[in-house]
Amino acid sequence: MTAAITAAILVIGDEILSGRTKDKNIGYIAEYLTNIGIDLKEVRVVPDEEAEIVTAVQALSQRYTYLFTTGGIGPTHDDITADCVAKAMGVSIDHDPRAIAMMLERYAKEDLNEARLRMARIPAGADLIENPISKAPGFKIGNVIVMAGVPSIMQAMLDNVAKTLETGAKMIVANFDTGGLPEGIYAAGLGAVAIAHPGVSIGSYPSFSAGGFKNQIVVRGKVQAEVDAALAAVSAMVTGLHADKAAI
Amino acid sequence: MTAAITAAILVIGDEILSGRTKDKNIGYIAEYLTNIGIDLKEVRVVPDEEAEIVTAVQALSQRYTYLFTTGGIGPTHDDITADCVAKAMGVSIDHDPRAIAMMLERYAKEDLNEARLRMARIPAGADLIENPISKAPGFKIGNVIVMAGVPSIMQAMLDNVAKTLETGAKMIVANFDTGGLPEGIYAAGLGAVAIAHPGVSIGSYPSFSAGGFKNQIVVRGKVQAEVDAALAAVSAMVTGLHADKAAI
Repeated sequence: MTAAITAAILVIGDEILSGRTKDKNIGYIAEYLTNIGIDLKEVRVVPDEEAEIVTAVQALSQRYTYLFTTGGIGPTHDDITADCVAKAMGVSIDHDPRAIAMMLERYAKEDLNEARLRMARIPAGADLIENPISKAPGFKIGNVIVMAGVPSIMQAMLDNVAKTLETGAKMIVANFDTGGLPEGIYAAGLGAVAIAHPGVSIGSYPSFSAGGFKNQIVVRGKVQAEVDAALAAVSAMVTGLHADKAAI
Repeated sequence: MTAAITAAILVIGDEILSGRTKDKNIGYIAEYLTNIGIDLKEVRVVPDEEAEIVTAVQALSQRYTYLFTTGGIGPTHDDITADCVAKAMGVSIDHDPRAIAMMLERYAKEDLNEARLRMARIPAGADLIENPISKAPGFKIGNVIVMAGVPSIMQAMLDNVAKTLETGAKMIVANFDTGGLPEGIYAAGLGAVAIAHPGVSIGSYPSFSAGGFKNQIVVRGKVQAEVDAALAAVSAMVTGLHADKAAI
């Protein structure tokens, strides 16, 4: 069994914390990483404040295989992510000729003013991540992957950087619809199944709408036979409870 | 000037980290708190693991005026939030007669099995938060507010608990559309405005769609005169740049 490859996401931006902008990146990256065999273990959202960003970058990059950040790499005064990541990693930061070359694909040389050149400030030793939409690149330094906050640009950057990442065994996910059985009826049985199948993680997820509660049981694991066995046990348990109900 | 009232959100759930469920609570709570004068300063998402939850509850509750948690208070084995919060706060936890009374509004006594009674486990000293939808309550212990993960239930609980919270001055937010001016053109001017108006926070938020980039400048502060002055300076700066462009 290979060691798990883990990750955290750090979303940087006052606009998410104020509720003005609704984040669309966490769910997207979470699903993407699951699909390529990287286990997302933690997410944080912090404001555009240097001390907060530096502390979070250090804590998360030290703990997980990869740290993905979104936001704060534009040309304005509130875009401080690159500088904060450099500080967190203990390296210098300066205008990077490779980044300037990328930006010259979009901007005439005379339009590359000081503000726009700010987007070419890259920590020393970083690899660039191409941005096909607006050209200003993201970057990867050590295990920290710095991406834009605009979803379409972030998604393109993620595609570009993902190819370079180490991945582990993919999570196998099996869904089981409980057919209207309430959580409170199957909870004890499900707990017993979970104890009997320690190699998988089993969750119960209610959703609520006008039609009432609907419950899904989800079995997640990295070994197909273990997921199959747990799913069969879940199915037998739920079917038995439906039969009990029908028999009353 | 009164001290700011601050908050953090802790989202508890493997299903968010796997990407299976897309969180709808962070954005909702963020906007809600901003509107009632509580400043959201940090968000974390952690898995259904005791050590992770306890550590996060302690870190965030010690640092901010309030901590709001969502998720993990149902009847199944993966619902461990209440026990983790009790552990984090150093108090005992047991079936709470007030919570059982609430649940008896929905369930017949003979249907209150052990799993459902699990939802009546409340840390000692907590105040209950009513749940008009499925009756199993949330709770508030110290400065930690524990709510359901299902959005409609969370929202009802937030309405109920919000009345009991201390609030500060509301954030005044002014939006300014840059009328198609690119960020790289106004970034230097905006930086100068930000320095000249230290009492407010000024952000620049690009969005990207088929029509290209659209940029909004947002001025946020708690003193109306300061927000007005900064907004006027932003407006004058952008108008000047448009005029410069037209004159070329």
